[in-house]
Amino acid sequence: MIVELINTGSELLLGRTLNTHQQWLGRQLADRGYVVSRQVTVADEGRAIQQAVRESLGRADLILVTGGLGPTSDDLTRELIAEVLGKPLREDPAIVAELRRYFAARNRPMPARNLVQAQVPEGARVLANRNGTAPGLAMKVAAGERAQWLILLPGPPRELQPMFLEQVVPLLERELPAEGFVCHTLRTSGLGESALAELIDAPLQPLIAEGLELGYCARPGLVDVRLAARGGAAAGIVARAEALVLPLLAGHVYADDEVDLETTLIRELTERGQTLALAESCTGGLLAHRLTNVPGASAVLLAGLVTYANAAKERFAGVPAELLAAHGAVSEPVARALAEGARRATGADYAVAITGIAGPGGGTPDKPVGTVFLAVSDAAGTDVIPQRHQFDRVTFKEVTTQQALNLLWRRVRAG
Amino acid sequence: MIVELINTGSELLLGRTLNTHQQWLGRQLADRGYVVSRQVTVADEGRAIQQAVRESLGRADLILVTGGLGPTSDDLTRELIAEVLGKPLREDPAIVAELRRYFAARNRPMPARNLVQAQVPEGARVLANRNGTAPGLAMKVAAGERAQWLILLPGPPRELQPMFLEQVVPLLERELPAEGFVCHTLRTSGLGESALAELIDAPLQPLIAEGLELGYCARPGLVDVRLAARGGAAAGIVARAEALVLPLLAGHVYADDEVDLETTLIRELTERGQTLALAESCTGGLLAHRLTNVPGASAVLLAGLVTYANAAKERFAGVPAELLAAHGAVSEPVARALAEGARRATGADYAVAITGIAGPGGGTPDKPVGTVFLAVSDAAGTDVIPQRHQFDRVTFKEVTTQQALNLLWRRVRAG
Repeated sequence: MIVELINTGSELLLGRTLNTHQQWLGRQLADRGYVVSRQVTVADEGRAIQQAVRESLGRADLILVTGGLGPTSDDLTRELIAEVLGKPLREDPAIVAELRRYFAARNRPMPARNLVQAQVPEGARVLANRNGTAPGLAMKVAAGERAQWLILLPGPPRELQPMFLEQVVPLLERELPAEGFVCHTLRTSGLGESALAELIDAPLQPLIAEGLELGYCARPGLVDVRLAARGGAAAGIVARAEALVLPLLAGHVYADDEVDLETTLIRELTERGQTLALAESCTGGLLAHRLTNVPGASAVLLAGLVTYANAAKERFAGVPAELLAAHGAVSEPVARALAEGARRATGADYAVAITGIAGPGGGTPDKPVGTVFLAVSDAAGTDVIPQRHQFDRVTFKEVTTQQALNLLWRRVRAG
Repeated sequence: MIVELINTGSELLLGRTLNTHQQWLGRQLADRGYVVSRQVTVADEGRAIQQAVRESLGRADLILVTGGLGPTSDDLTRELIAEVLGKPLREDPAIVAELRRYFAARNRPMPARNLVQAQVPEGARVLANRNGTAPGLAMKVAAGERAQWLILLPGPPRELQPMFLEQVVPLLERELPAEGFVCHTLRTSGLGESALAELIDAPLQPLIAEGLELGYCARPGLVDVRLAARGGAAAGIVARAEALVLPLLAGHVYADDEVDLETTLIRELTERGQTLALAESCTGGLLAHRLTNVPGASAVLLAGLVTYANAAKERFAGVPAELLAAHGAVSEPVARALAEGARRATGADYAVAITGIAGPGGGTPDKPVGTVFLAVSDAAGTDVIPQRHQFDRVTFKEVTTQQALNLLWRRVRAG
């Protein structure tokens, strides 16, 4: 089955908006056996949208189009696609009623232009939008023997996502059942991409001959290894590949892709009834943010202290002023004192502390930009590791918090 | 000039990785007058990459390809493109020497497979990679009258971005000078997309006739209005459009796209020599994270307290236990006490506090999921606003912190 994704939106091409649909839909589809083989972004412009849809109709069994269903002058997708399919647009009274209800519930008058959202190409199924005004559309396109499906979804993620999960998924399972596809990603740290490939490429060759698809994706300080296969034997091939690879990468795999490390940590600590406190300086709250993205984090995280100023390190984490004066805020002793102080001040079982220089300013010859100390503390003691991460500010924060999660994970597993 | 972007990488189609290149390159190119008219993602798979490059060669003046230059078995771009162009690959001794230096500097042996990265199609210019091992390539493709450029860039953002800025931009300015393009985005809050369009669409019609491109992009609680134009008159058209629109949207525009609100706030407070403290509960550090993404935030932000547990609210922000018992943590009085306590504990000029229920758990009939109180405090007093944001957890955090930034911005401007 050939699946293609068309994202419409000039804001995507102009770089004003990140294309999160590509990732979200790609993932949701792949996990159900529909692997997107081509994704294209075109501007909110008639000819470009029509050309992209025509090209995909010539190749694909399933085509998803996102965006361009809103009420404004740059939302053209509905009409343009009706034109490509040669179907007239009809006003759908149920959508009109729904639009009136939507605005009435919000005590707002309905702008007249919203009525364009009630226009439906003949024969299309309407996908209700419970988070906005633009309904989606699903159209079966008769093209000789094959049944092709063209599905139009609204642009805002909080409208698109529930519509896809609640209405598109059941439709696909019924109308276009997928072949098996299994994909598993091992997330590793501590090995470069080529060093990693030298360890596992050769041993995996026999499985590659059986249909294993092997992929790598390098990020700062991390490499993901993707193991995938299709068809009836897919699950077995991926499981054998994983069994073969895991011992070769012992100690380097920190998570699999079903669960990120934040979630693993919150689950594990919740099960044990243990708690956590944080003291962050240069990562500015990102570590707390990542952990609190996990539902239920409040059972584990007592407090995160973003002790940016020295006075905050003293007041909230009890770091002695003399220690700060003697070693500077970015130092092994201060990292240790921050972790121990955060643990003491909150009574948490574990504390993690980070102090460093994210840059671009603030570096010295002694402690250049990128210098950072990470500490983890529990009843058994405190470990501090010095690092140097020479990245831009945002990457620095990402890499450093990832490392802090790894550090905590190793301590929790050992405990 | 027609510009197309090809992203290679199965991890993008499988939704394992977010396509940040599309946004970053799209933005960088557009700001310099090269507007991407089509972006496509294809798998790391020979036929798909070659087909995409052939299609783009048939249409575009400038083609950028990202990814697939690494040392592993799924990095195929270099060879495949040499084949499309009919050029032989040659080993480049300068790249070999650079690779040896790279590994020597890191005290690591060079894996033999890295040598594939020294293979260069005949006639290509090598783009040095100062953050990794994969060099980029720039190739002038002779196609009759037109000069076409095909540029290959490595996948990791921290390799691609400096290579683009330092080597590709000067090359483009020399070899493919761009026509004028001006794009300005006004970020608004408080108006729906269609209400906003009803305010500004009609007045802008004369400018649209002169070439103004008007676009909208809705996000949770926010709508971006994009004003763009091309050619010699572009700057004037966009400036006139902005002058016309701004009074119509008075009070709703919170930032323009050159500068986000975090940056505006940090700059403004730095200039005034004023300081800030935060106390966050349900947003879990995201507000601190957003503000500390701005270089120089340390001059302004004294501390961020992620007071997740009630005990942390008492200890770090001095919220009285009786107040928590009487009203609950998610309440107007506790939001007020958090802001005033954070200000008192740090001596900051301003404090912002957030307390609420991000969900999915923790709601009650009285205070359902999404209930949140935001407070801002300075010497003149404390304001608290109650809100209800019924989104998923991650969107809730985004919308709520955006609103907290707006609240602080209004208070700072009034001060």
